[in-house]
Amino acid sequence: MSATKQQKSAKDVPYELIYWPGIPGRGEFIRLALEEGGADYTDTAHTGKGMDETLVQIDGKNIGDDNNPPPLAPPILRHGDLLISQTPNILLYLGPRLGLVPPAEGEDGDPDAIYRINALTLTALDGLSNEVHDCHHPIASSLYYEDQKEESLRKSRDFVKNRLPKFLGYFERVLTGKASGDGPWLYGGRLTYADLVLFQVVDGVKFAFPKAMSAAQTSGKYVLVFRLYDAVKTRPKIKEYLASKRRQSYSQGIYRYYPELDLTETDTPQPVQ
Amino acid sequence: MSATKQQKSAKDVPYELIYWPGIPGRGEFIRLALEEGGADYTDTAHTGKGMDETLVQIDGKNIGDDNNPPPLAPPILRHGDLLISQTPNILLYLGPRLGLVPPAEGEDGDPDAIYRINALTLTALDGLSNEVHDCHHPIASSLYYEDQKEESLRKSRDFVKNRLPKFLGYFERVLTGKASGDGPWLYGGRLTYADLVLFQVVDGVKFAFPKAMSAAQTSGKYVLVFRLYDAVKTRPKIKEYLASKRRQSYSQGIYRYYPELDLTETDTPQPVQ
Repeated sequence: MSATKQQKSAKDVPYELIYWPGIPGRGEFIRLALEEGGADYTDTAHTGKGMDETLVQIDGKNIGDDNNPPPLAPPILRHGDLLISQTPNILLYLGPRLGLVPPAEGEDGDPDAIYRINALTLTALDGLSNEVHDCHHPIASSLYYEDQKEESLRKSRDFVKNRLPKFLGYFERVLTGKASGDGPWLYGGRLTYADLVLFQVVDGVKFAFPKAMSAAQTSGKYVLVFRLYDAVKTRPKIKEYLASKRRQSYSQGIYRYYPELDLTETDTPQPVQ
Repeated sequence: MSATKQQKSAKDVPYELIYWPGIPGRGEFIRLALEEGGADYTDTAHTGKGMDETLVQIDGKNIGDDNNPPPLAPPILRHGDLLISQTPNILLYLGPRLGLVPPAEGEDGDPDAIYRINALTLTALDGLSNEVHDCHHPIASSLYYEDQKEESLRKSRDFVKNRLPKFLGYFERVLTGKASGDGPWLYGGRLTYADLVLFQVVDGVKFAFPKAMSAAQTSGKYVLVFRLYDAVKTRPKIKEYLASKRRQSYSQGIYRYYPELDLTETDTPQPVQ
């Protein structure tokens, strides 16, 4: 049975990312890992089938297959017979396979590394991805932004004033700590997928809250966070990817730009018209 | 170095859960795993040091130690020299050690199981824990509920009408699918920590939204979800735990009961006084 399972999820086939077309969204965290890892992969965002394939997977009648439970939402990764969802979970799977975590075994093996990297990833996604989405959809993702504008303004004000400094300050502390090792990275003195995640959330928040992020950068409080951001951005494979057509523009996804939400820490919010 | 690391995170010491006293909170997911796994563990909620130890860990000046980045928030698990945070991450670590996932290796080894179980866990925590917290704190966790009552009512109405059926329906589909195997469990015909998580979120939502959950149960749409709930609740170790003083009452944590938010799917919300 072991042999069969090994064969079923054989790792000599390309990775398939199943995600909506038209936005970087949560798929982007997966793409950055695949790109930096030099993986052979397909991406439904660019095949013309992104909408259909995603809808089939998340259909309210899908009960999965013999081995895989159904996914609730994209991003979804298919690899051979394995089909999994949830951004940090997909990264957990890809990390060791793409060399984006320290090896668990061997002379210098660090079997606990994956749990530290996963924690950093979950924290970055919680605070600077999920909470940013909630800034424009604090009441219900089923409603339009226009139907929750007042609440969005209140939420965004709290985000810029309290949450953004909390999370940027947290990652600055992580980068100051010894466990981050030498160099610009979050853990162990080498690039891991947590760094790619931090890059992407910072990039997204820069798009959504340019004023607050500009103030954060010039404050000098988060020098190491912005150093990491630059270090990821200039890695050869990432640089090539970001300049390519595979990198989609921000639009109506997690990271959205609404001028009325583009607050600074000291702004007094204006009443919504 | 490998030997040193093995020694450092030696697994022959008790687990230490660091969490606030006074609420089950996110610590409860960890406790259920430790209890069902028959682990030797300590819990700061019961040592009188829960507040102090948690505050030290999440202090804005903590930069972690030589090997561990600082945690942003509890629950935190210490095991030898390893210190990790984030609920699903701690469960990921404990799962294989406590026999709460299928073995990855050996004759019937299922190395992909952990990724499926982790996805189910993340989905349950997203939808039926984090979103439930946001029902009473949709604008800011730094504000009192009383300062965001109107928004809470709007959010709760959406939760009861759209989100709760979505997530309960999702887990009913998972339990219907072949990958769940025989018996009451979510994956592979055996209890995993994802089942403990689903039990706890259902239990919490029953406390916070009793009318909606009673309606969900009598609707007959989620028979398998409630069967799993009962199956976990009556397992000998869990039963003993739930009857013990170690199980704390719900109060001002994730799961709160506010009569004005205790809506049913067909309720028209009343204006907030």
